[in-house]
Amino acid sequence: MTDQPQIKQIEDTTRSHTVVSVDAMGGDNGPATVVAGLARCAKKDPSLRFILHGQASVLTPLLDRRRLGDVVELRDCAGVVEMADKPSQVLRSGKDTSMWSCIEAVRTGDADVAVSCGNTGALMAISMIRLRKVDGVNRPAIACLWPSRNPSGFNVMLDVGADIRADEHDLLQYAMMGASYARNGLDLETPRVGLLNVGTEEHKGRAELKVAHELLRRAAKKSKLDYVGFVEGGDIPSDKVDVIVTDGFTGNVALKTGEGTASLIRDFLGKAFRHTPLSRLAALLALPSLRRLARRIDPRRVNGGVFLGLNGTVVKSHGSSDVLGMASAIHLASRLSQSDFNRKLAKRIATANELAADLDKEES
Amino acid sequence: MTDQPQIKQIEDTTRSHTVVSVDAMGGDNGPATVVAGLARCAKKDPSLRFILHGQASVLTPLLDRRRLGDVVELRDCAGVVEMADKPSQVLRSGKDTSMWSCIEAVRTGDADVAVSCGNTGALMAISMIRLRKVDGVNRPAIACLWPSRNPSGFNVMLDVGADIRADEHDLLQYAMMGASYARNGLDLETPRVGLLNVGTEEHKGRAELKVAHELLRRAAKKSKLDYVGFVEGGDIPSDKVDVIVTDGFTGNVALKTGEGTASLIRDFLGKAFRHTPLSRLAALLALPSLRRLARRIDPRRVNGGVFLGLNGTVVKSHGSSDVLGMASAIHLASRLSQSDFNRKLAKRIATANELAADLDKEES
Repeated sequence: MTDQPQIKQIEDTTRSHTVVSVDAMGGDNGPATVVAGLARCAKKDPSLRFILHGQASVLTPLLDRRRLGDVVELRDCAGVVEMADKPSQVLRSGKDTSMWSCIEAVRTGDADVAVSCGNTGALMAISMIRLRKVDGVNRPAIACLWPSRNPSGFNVMLDVGADIRADEHDLLQYAMMGASYARNGLDLETPRVGLLNVGTEEHKGRAELKVAHELLRRAAKKSKLDYVGFVEGGDIPSDKVDVIVTDGFTGNVALKTGEGTASLIRDFLGKAFRHTPLSRLAALLALPSLRRLARRIDPRRVNGGVFLGLNGTVVKSHGSSDVLGMASAIHLASRLSQSDFNRKLAKRIATANELAADLDKEES
Repeated sequence: MTDQPQIKQIEDTTRSHTVVSVDAMGGDNGPATVVAGLARCAKKDPSLRFILHGQASVLTPLLDRRRLGDVVELRDCAGVVEMADKPSQVLRSGKDTSMWSCIEAVRTGDADVAVSCGNTGALMAISMIRLRKVDGVNRPAIACLWPSRNPSGFNVMLDVGADIRADEHDLLQYAMMGASYARNGLDLETPRVGLLNVGTEEHKGRAELKVAHELLRRAAKKSKLDYVGFVEGGDIPSDKVDVIVTDGFTGNVALKTGEGTASLIRDFLGKAFRHTPLSRLAALLALPSLRRLARRIDPRRVNGGVFLGLNGTVVKSHGSSDVLGMASAIHLASRLSQSDFNRKLAKRIATANELAADLDKEES
């Protein structure tokens, strides 16, 4: 290690504001929703500053109306990454887009953290190319928060879609990165980590899971995490585990299945309460309770997949984010930046890799 | 084809009763629960007959108490397959178990269909070895019903755990078997089939999914199914699709994640309604509505994973099945048997394989 990280650290502490780089374009609900979410965060935390990326002709009136000129710097970008664009195509010809500019502001150090609700694949591709992976990381991952029975109300799951593959070493790194996220995002000193499988017995599952199980069992002793072994889909929202580790294909399917199930039940619940005059009266009386429930399982509250393993923190907000969703994602980004999360994560990965090397040596 | 299937068919139509082979042991709640579930089905449908497998010393008093002697034949078996037993070990030394005897009754033709709530891996292993795969099937699959927004209230998903792997040809066969199940189990003439992926765009997902996508697109034209392309986790409970096709690892995680999410929301809902005196009053008024909701999302109602692709129908009931769960599984088994489902499925697979061969010829 050279002096560079120290210099960066001094810069961080001397800058009095946290600067969030926000991509205004590419979400399903348009830039007005993004600006409204940003305005909500700006009001809540006056120490925040923003760099907003997108078409100035659209954004200037929005910013003026909300009088955000003092806290927002606008960067005019003609291009927009569409949801259907292929990542490879965006990498070739997307340098004029708001998404590219949003990530670039983190790379140059103008901003501390980036938020976008655009095309996930393209956002990950640009982030990989421009921010580059942290030394020693093979595959970056996307971590999400999941409503759970734990005291904090949440569990962490990763990878939920950065990559459709993960071998045993990737899974070990995901465990380390997920534990680091749980430490900084959920204030858990020794997070319990589980490996997602189709059963909890040791003989079950794919070959790479059995190897990762053994790696984690041995690594846990020497690192600040409590490895609880294999967990199943039903354990994702449980209080048996804090961090659920899986490949990006399985994680993405699980995340969307959970969201789909919750949305189905919300619909059924609504219908049940509209069924008879008596049930409509009951609904009226139960309104505060139902609102409390809706808040607990509201996916907008847990909005924001965090890209882990890059030189810079990027938060991916849901494509269909509304104002509350955008505000949650920006709030998460600023909190992670303020806790100096990315530097801690990089340190943790370096330790993990030394550990893995030690284990390999012990083996041979 | 020889005369044999015709002889079997005459036997089927001459037998006036549907005979269900039931494994009494191996469930989490013990044989009393299994016998109670059986008793419920016997009362509802007096045309049913049962062969019950397990320890006679335990089962005889249970049957006597419920006066089931006329409709139940008891087969005494000393051994029990435990949940933690490895399938390979059960195959070697499990011939004296109730599970083995349960499947054997279907193989010999004494029973039409088998039901067990024991160890899934062992049940699949015994079923594979004793019943054997239908000609042309590479990997059998387990199909489950999933509460959905469709008019029937359910979608079919497979594989949910027979095998952790599936290549493109397996996925094509799963599609054919799932469509056949939807035709016979949900009365859908032309089921809509979707392939589970991490996005709906053609360039997304694993290599075998892209090939299966192409195979299904071409096969759909010539078979009685409507291929809707890639679907995501959120679409599993939707009305966009009737049959969701995936490998057994992903399907098992999705199934358990859905169950876990539903159970979390039920808990939260209960807590919300116990929160204040007013909300407790509301809960009282809303009771019929809440019961209606609970029924719609009750996993016991959709209990029963069906093994597809074997010479004989086997229904796997949930390990923690209670009386209602067992009754649902036995009911599903008898309904499938009465619709002559397994013969239709075998025919469908033969057609699918001819189709696949045709596609291969066109290709070359």
